[in-house]
Amino acid sequence: MRQDKILNIPAIRRMPTYLHKLLKMQAEGKVSVSSTELAEYMNIELIVVRKDISLTGISGQRRIGYDVNELITYIKNYLGWQDTIPAVLIGAGSLGTALLGYNDFELYGFNISHVFDSDPEKIGKELYGRTVRSVEDMKICFAANPPEIAVICVSNSAAQQIADKLVELGIRYIWNFANVSLKVPPHVVVQREVIAGGLAMLAVKRKQNNAVNR
Amino acid sequence: MRQDKILNIPAIRRMPTYLHKLLKMQAEGKVSVSSTELAEYMNIELIVVRKDISLTGISGQRRIGYDVNELITYIKNYLGWQDTIPAVLIGAGSLGTALLGYNDFELYGFNISHVFDSDPEKIGKELYGRTVRSVEDMKICFAANPPEIAVICVSNSAAQQIADKLVELGIRYIWNFANVSLKVPPHVVVQREVIAGGLAMLAVKRKQNNAVNR
Repeated sequence: MRQDKILNIPAIRRMPTYLHKLLKMQAEGKVSVSSTELAEYMNIELIVVRKDISLTGISGQRRIGYDVNELITYIKNYLGWQDTIPAVLIGAGSLGTALLGYNDFELYGFNISHVFDSDPEKIGKELYGRTVRSVEDMKICFAANPPEIAVICVSNSAAQQIADKLVELGIRYIWNFANVSLKVPPHVVVQREVIAGGLAMLAVKRKQNNAVNR
Repeated sequence: MRQDKILNIPAIRRMPTYLHKLLKMQAEGKVSVSSTELAEYMNIELIVVRKDISLTGISGQRRIGYDVNELITYIKNYLGWQDTIPAVLIGAGSLGTALLGYNDFELYGFNISHVFDSDPEKIGKELYGRTVRSVEDMKICFAANPPEIAVICVSNSAAQQIADKLVELGIRYIWNFANVSLKVPPHVVVQREVIAGGLAMLAVKRKQNNAVNR
């Protein structure tokens, strides 16, 4: 994996939350939004919101706020989410099912078109409009619809084998929900998702509170 | 919510991943670990690993590496994870089920003892050793076993109502997986988990690669 330095990690992780709010405002017909309004929604400081938004390159108009449509465009450009990104998901267990049911992915242009599993009891099942297919079908399926991103939701013990197969089939971006460090060639990018990361954040806030209240 | 500034967010989010690796090494009988080994596992730069670990207050011994047991203790202390934190989960859908099946929580002292749902079809079901109970039972159940953290895995539309109920019952820490900004009194801390945050990270890496290859 290329070790390009990614700066502003917390800001990048917040972008989908801004987008979620802005798309909702757009649907409600709102045309402008102030940074104060966004700070309240995000539950973070005003200066952090302004910094986050300035990353997208939009020119701020502090008095009247940001144009909702324009800010959506700038955030999507910043993330490279202007176009649809074809994706597949491997592992139709409870976590995989939860991700397939996540409504916002489509709004972000993230389109999970196919779902694969190796469990004969799951193959053939319908999950949010997709039929679960055998992992054996990946090759033929990828040839017809080459995906850019593969989401790994299999067990920890099966994850490396699935990753090897995905790399062999030309996948360059892996979003890994298994709790393992995947070994991949340098041209493949892995984003490891550790659910407990949020719990660590909550734990630190709890510890700070306990220290204050002691 | 008290707006205490939390610094080092990416480092905090990485702590459970270090802990996962270290606990595994401990189980395998390894006594020391080098920062190089951790950097390779984490797929991040060596200097970042050293900075992360220095946050815990452990004194580094660069030549022989860190003592595995000691580093585990320091990380747990840093996160306030020395003792068991009693927790409950509301919403026994696919995401809630996935969280209940997450093996590492127990190792982190995060103990989800009870699961609640409002769906009569789910109440009474067994999920990883817990029986799903009605949300109506929360009051009586909390009185007997007061939880510190509540995990919200209900639908976006039901989340605020559940949060209100939890606050009324004395919960001070909420780990919120619903995609909504919860309104809570200032003494209650909410950690909102946005799954798409990781997707944004992957998207930015993809955009950087595409820019280089163009």
